[in-house]
Amino acid sequence: MRMYDIIMNKRNGKELTDEEIRFFIEGYTKGEIPDYQVSSLMMAIYFRKMTARETLTLTLAMADSGEKLDLSAIYGIKVDKHSTGGVGDKTSLALTPIVASLGVPVAKMSGRGLGHTGGTIDKLESFDGFSTAISNDTFINNVNTIGIAIMGQTADLAPADKKLYALRDVTATVDNMSLIASSIMSKKLAAGADSIVLDVKTGSGAFMKTEEDSFALAREMVEIGRNAGRKMSAVISDMDQPLGNAVGNAIEVIEAIDTLKGKGPADFTELVYTLGAQMLINGGVAPDVDTANKMIKETISSGKALDKLAEFVKAQGGNPEQVYNTDLLKLADNCIEVKSPEAGYVEHIDCDEIGICSLILGGGRETKESEIDLSVGIMLKKKVGDCVEKGETIALIYANDLKKADVAMERFIKAYHFSGNEVTVPALIKGII
Amino acid sequence: MRMYDIIMNKRNGKELTDEEIRFFIEGYTKGEIPDYQVSSLMMAIYFRKMTARETLTLTLAMADSGEKLDLSAIYGIKVDKHSTGGVGDKTSLALTPIVASLGVPVAKMSGRGLGHTGGTIDKLESFDGFSTAISNDTFINNVNTIGIAIMGQTADLAPADKKLYALRDVTATVDNMSLIASSIMSKKLAAGADSIVLDVKTGSGAFMKTEEDSFALAREMVEIGRNAGRKMSAVISDMDQPLGNAVGNAIEVIEAIDTLKGKGPADFTELVYTLGAQMLINGGVAPDVDTANKMIKETISSGKALDKLAEFVKAQGGNPEQVYNTDLLKLADNCIEVKSPEAGYVEHIDCDEIGICSLILGGGRETKESEIDLSVGIMLKKKVGDCVEKGETIALIYANDLKKADVAMERFIKAYHFSGNEVTVPALIKGII
Repeated sequence: MRMYDIIMNKRNGKELTDEEIRFFIEGYTKGEIPDYQVSSLMMAIYFRKMTARETLTLTLAMADSGEKLDLSAIYGIKVDKHSTGGVGDKTSLALTPIVASLGVPVAKMSGRGLGHTGGTIDKLESFDGFSTAISNDTFINNVNTIGIAIMGQTADLAPADKKLYALRDVTATVDNMSLIASSIMSKKLAAGADSIVLDVKTGSGAFMKTEEDSFALAREMVEIGRNAGRKMSAVISDMDQPLGNAVGNAIEVIEAIDTLKGKGPADFTELVYTLGAQMLINGGVAPDVDTANKMIKETISSGKALDKLAEFVKAQGGNPEQVYNTDLLKLADNCIEVKSPEAGYVEHIDCDEIGICSLILGGGRETKESEIDLSVGIMLKKKVGDCVEKGETIALIYANDLKKADVAMERFIKAYHFSGNEVTVPALIKGII
Repeated sequence: MRMYDIIMNKRNGKELTDEEIRFFIEGYTKGEIPDYQVSSLMMAIYFRKMTARETLTLTLAMADSGEKLDLSAIYGIKVDKHSTGGVGDKTSLALTPIVASLGVPVAKMSGRGLGHTGGTIDKLESFDGFSTAISNDTFINNVNTIGIAIMGQTADLAPADKKLYALRDVTATVDNMSLIASSIMSKKLAAGADSIVLDVKTGSGAFMKTEEDSFALAREMVEIGRNAGRKMSAVISDMDQPLGNAVGNAIEVIEAIDTLKGKGPADFTELVYTLGAQMLINGGVAPDVDTANKMIKETISSGKALDKLAEFVKAQGGNPEQVYNTDLLKLADNCIEVKSPEAGYVEHIDCDEIGICSLILGGGRETKESEIDLSVGIMLKKKVGDCVEKGETIALIYANDLKKADVAMERFIKAYHFSGNEVTVPALIKGII
């Protein structure tokens, strides 16, 4: 078998065989097939697309390219959750204690973020002493005893995907639904859960800008997962403006805790309920959405979900006092009010721009080596549909460096667009598959 | 400007600007743009194609990527000739002395062949002492005094094309008309002639298998050349069976000399006249095809063309006696008759297979480092349309190694296909542009 023929077959519109796909992925992972042959194959796939069978085989081959987590020592149905990412997305922080408190085991391997804010692990490190550098045994044991553990990504999950994505990223071959879906799903399958609940974002701050594309990606991933024998759900949710009000790291932790106290922003709370219900159903602890919603409401109002977060933070070396008293979480020294330059209704917020403001403040990583300042961030006071007076505060910027705050402020103001007419608030949940 | 955006633009169907094409070719030649980006661009071009303007710019950028020959010190209109290649193609050997003897200066830079037989330079080395390793001054001086000189390719002509072609060859991105045309034409433009006469082959032994593709390639190259200010002609000629009867090196030289004596095979003689007429017209020494044909006939019958070859061979260190007495050219020790396995009319000859037989005998290069045996080869005794008795000799194999001869013989016989019915001989010249 020769890579040349595989490229030629795809170029000419033939469906690749399982053997061809596995040959290519194995050879590429081992470094036996050069980048320049793979990038021309990726471009041929961009034009010719892949069938459902090809996509499944590619996903499985990438999932098989490195280590695979074995979660069999954990009791119960393991439900993983994945978000395609966006601005202000602190969903895992609130969602995992909720479902863990209701009996769905959470055994999550997380990475650090390379983006506008940190990833889940970075955010959790806002708790003094918290660490995800725990052993496999502690990881399994914690899940079996308290129902939740989050580990740094130590295992070499789907290295083929890592290598392939880096290549696609510089050869204009990212935008293919099958390739995007197989990239995400290969890591999720290697991570070993029985069920996966996907949060596919849509809008200006999302990877998929249109609802059509977001639904297509969700369907593609759900199909792959089901064909691989996993129980799947996908929620398509709005990312045309930041999720909730907090954008940053510690500030997002505070908002997640507020939500576990029943005092979270409406949009974020709605998303937590929607994803939580799918996780409870897939985890076999709730029969339907109505029951699941009642269970979530109860675990929040009773304080059980909050207690679960405190228990989890403590088990991994963090200070649980900070869960009950968020004043103990460190925010930046300066809190600067952003005033509205005009009066009107907020018509649109350039979502990515708000993320970039957080990055400018120091809240995200520009390169893998960047140090994150967990204390900086932004608290939105006005969102799409809100009525604003000229000079009214539309947001608070938490900054340690006032020069950076000035740059972020200028950019922030330009990201807000106003209308003289009332603006309808867009639905947060676009659909569930 | 970023290579990423250039790939993206082409992928999305945009016409690339001149600046983008030159940026890519210059960056790639310098090694600043990696292979993996270029191969994905080549695949995008395969699917999106290139406009005439893009193709011209690409060709010129590649022609400009290295040295360019300056032939201005040579008097008269310099006419170059290029063949897309095939089996038994010894055309330059007969054609160049003919046109030189009629006043069209021949200043040719030739490469060694990597294929079934050697290139023009290898074949010329069949003359004892002949060398193409001459200085630039000798080269120019010889053309101005005797009208003809052939030099080994010392200059670094169109290095971008060399690099790009090697990449396309392993990434399944060769088959695009614009890329093929620009590859050939970039080298021809860098070689400095005022006019280029193209011999575009068509059929089973040619790069282009169909007449449609061959005409398309010819038109594309003629358009590029004209847009670059060169006088252009293209002849589309048959390569569905070997050209003439001789396949090899010394054996092809003998056939070319026979043709200069007016005793060449009909098909090869027809091609030499057709291409020669175009060269004489483009070189300004003949007003039309009829006059040109008469001039060619006269230079052959008078012996002037043969004398020109002898003069040329002598000027470059070779033995001119071998021109007048081809028995002095060395052929292999063993001459083995190939007998027809059946009776009938020759319906088809697998052209490439005959070339491979020559390669097996040692007459071509499998790698750049291979040594060619100039004395081996094949002399066809029967061609398409000929009537053959069972056991009649269809060819002679000239071999130094009898084991290789056996392998070649077996393969040769399988390449001949017979019919019980009379077979029409296909036209040699398919068209002239």
